Amino acid sequence: MKKVILMPDSFKGTMSSSEICGIMEKAVRAYYPDAEVVPIPVADGGEGSVDAFLAAVGGERVTVPVRGPYMEEMEGYYGLLDGGSTAVIEMAACAGLPLVGENRHAEKTTTYGVGQLMAHAAGRGCKKMIVGLGGSATNDFGAGAAAALGVRFLDEAGEEFVPVGENLARVAKIDMSGLLPALRGIEVITMCDIDNPLCGKNGAAHIFGPQKGADPAMVEYLDGQLSAIARTVGRELGRDVADLPGAGAAGGMGGGMVAFLGSRLQMGIETVLDTVGFDRLVCDADLVLSGEGKIDTQSLRGKVVIGVARRCKKHGVPLVALVGDIGDNIENAYEEGVSAVFSTNRVAVDFSVARTRSKSDMALTVDNLMRFLSRIGF
Amino acid sequence: MKKVILMPDSFKGTMSSSEICGIMEKAVRAYYPDAEVVPIPVADGGEGSVDAFLAAVGGERVTVPVRGPYMEEMEGYYGLLDGGSTAVIEMAACAGLPLVGENRHAEKTTTYGVGQLMAHAAGRGCKKMIVGLGGSATNDFGAGAAAALGVRFLDEAGEEFVPVGENLARVAKIDMSGLLPALRGIEVITMCDIDNPLCGKNGAAHIFGPQKGADPAMVEYLDGQLSAIARTVGRELGRDVADLPGAGAAGGMGGGMVAFLGSRLQMGIETVLDTVGFDRLVCDADLVLSGEGKIDTQSLRGKVVIGVARRCKKHGVPLVALVGDIGDNIENAYEEGVSAVFSTNRVAVDFSVARTRSKSDMALTVDNLMRFLSRIGF
Repeated sequence: MKKVILMPDSFKGTMSSSEICGIMEKAVRAYYPDAEVVPIPVADGGEGSVDAFLAAVGGERVTVPVRGPYMEEMEGYYGLLDGGSTAVIEMAACAGLPLVGENRHAEKTTTYGVGQLMAHAAGRGCKKMIVGLGGSATNDFGAGAAAALGVRFLDEAGEEFVPVGENLARVAKIDMSGLLPALRGIEVITMCDIDNPLCGKNGAAHIFGPQKGADPAMVEYLDGQLSAIARTVGRELGRDVADLPGAGAAGGMGGGMVAFLGSRLQMGIETVLDTVGFDRLVCDADLVLSGEGKIDTQSLRGKVVIGVARRCKKHGVPLVALVGDIGDNIENAYEEGVSAVFSTNRVAVDFSVARTRSKSDMALTVDNLMRFLSRIGF
Repeated sequence: MKKVILMPDSFKGTMSSSEICGIMEKAVRAYYPDAEVVPIPVADGGEGSVDAFLAAVGGERVTVPVRGPYMEEMEGYYGLLDGGSTAVIEMAACAGLPLVGENRHAEKTTTYGVGQLMAHAAGRGCKKMIVGLGGSATNDFGAGAAAALGVRFLDEAGEEFVPVGENLARVAKIDMSGLLPALRGIEVITMCDIDNPLCGKNGAAHIFGPQKGADPAMVEYLDGQLSAIARTVGRELGRDVADLPGAGAAGGMGGGMVAFLGSRLQMGIETVLDTVGFDRLVCDADLVLSGEGKIDTQSLRGKVVIGVARRCKKHGVPLVALVGDIGDNIENAYEEGVSAVFSTNRVAVDFSVARTRSKSDMALTVDNLMRFLSRIGF
């Protein structure tokens, strides 16, 4: 009986990882009805990450009353895996851009609810906490989340407040003494798939502010606020997060997770591979199918296909990448463990057309691959 | 040791079958250095057919002084295969469109030289003659070739002449008594990949006349001349070629080959498969690679990939088709013996762009296929 692991990245703008897993599974089962098929939808930290982890390894979906982006009451959720020892939290659950609709004001939104989710998970006794960044409506450096976890922010006058994007510079003192005791001993891993710094032209405000409603003047203003909080953090906590790659993720929450919780920032795929116990799963697999929207020299830097390929290579399991576009100079992919790359492009048309047919094109490609493998007696 | 047969169609407008064979062979050898690789460039009857046959099975390339499209002296060629028992002639060698340059006058050009090549081959003692139609500059119903072989065309006044496109209607009597005795007992097979009738809206003049220099009035005139010779042939020789599929190939030479020589019109691929002894070659092969510019419901009607696939199916050998575009509803291809179809499109771009990169895209695709096969221990 064959064992086939499915672990594709999402195809940005066309298919989620979960959708691709479904398409792949159907094709594998069509030719190998008795196969053990292991679909592992890949979470990138953004919206859907909790459900992706739950789909991959099972667990409990916990719902919690929390505060939303504008401190409104709402219901958040997170996942408990491994019998409760690992919690998976996605900030998009209560600070995500879809939650604010057209009411986008990066200067006023908060990550407070994310801290509430973390506090709840800590209270449930988890030993490890994975916090997925991505898809945020906020630019508050994660100060809201920190406040919900007991960190106190005080201004020059000694007045405590919960900072948001527009008043990070008002913070004069950071009091960590009230940090939730339940967090002690918990390993907090922050998943983020970008390596933007906190401030500057490539920082959180400049790169992601506009999609959160900031006009050019507001972008400059928010960038200044992030610079200010970075200086304050340096002075008060002795941590330098200004130039840290990934600090600019999710409105600076990447930096805040490091500053307030000593969290480690990690590319999503390694977190996922570790969390789902990929090495254990793959060791007796016959084939792994992965894929991404475009494989190129950039995606060779720690993205999904290569991350999965490295593990496959270690265990000697062949991996086929089914991708949208195949860029130039991907020879390194083969060295990293990719056995072959096939494009799902089946007609010579522009991406504007190809994107509308991505699902059926993926289905045809994986169907042909499995058809061929069964035909040659694999 | 693996045995891999390469038998792709040309990709119209981008790569010849021979070029594709070269790309495929390189990839196969890169992963299976000891493999027996059998490249079989596919002739379609047009220009390059003789060389394709010679490349596939070896043989002698014979050059002969003949008459060109305007009765000018030139050097033609044909191939002798199987120790001289089979001759392969392409009409393009001495009646092809490239030979006339811009001097295109379908009404005045002749296939006389083609008959000279046939006469020479018959004199060499061949038992079978394959005449490839395609790429012609002529519209003479093959009457010129027939004249070179001894057929006498007479007008109402009893005057003998060699008809061309503009005076086929002048033929009143056809005297077959002088037909070259050496032709007796030779099986003449005419290769043509189109099924147009001799006359009418889908006939030789209407469909192919314009590219041979005929303006709309001339097209109508030439069509009338073809109708007239069809009637004359019916009356004089008792053969009805007006509605015969393929009679309209090469300026009506398809019809003439049937009328004057009793030849059989055959799709190119079956002729090639038979001539190269494909069934003998494939019976101990491990894999066959084929391909074409676009596989679709139309190409399922007797074109190269399907023709090869049917033979592979008979012998239980897997066939992979590497194609440009994959059309819809190609399920029938699988039933006919295609094990899998992979597209060479590796980026989502329009064909106007894709065509400029066809060779490297084919190289990458076949490289990945062979890389994968070697990786999984095929």
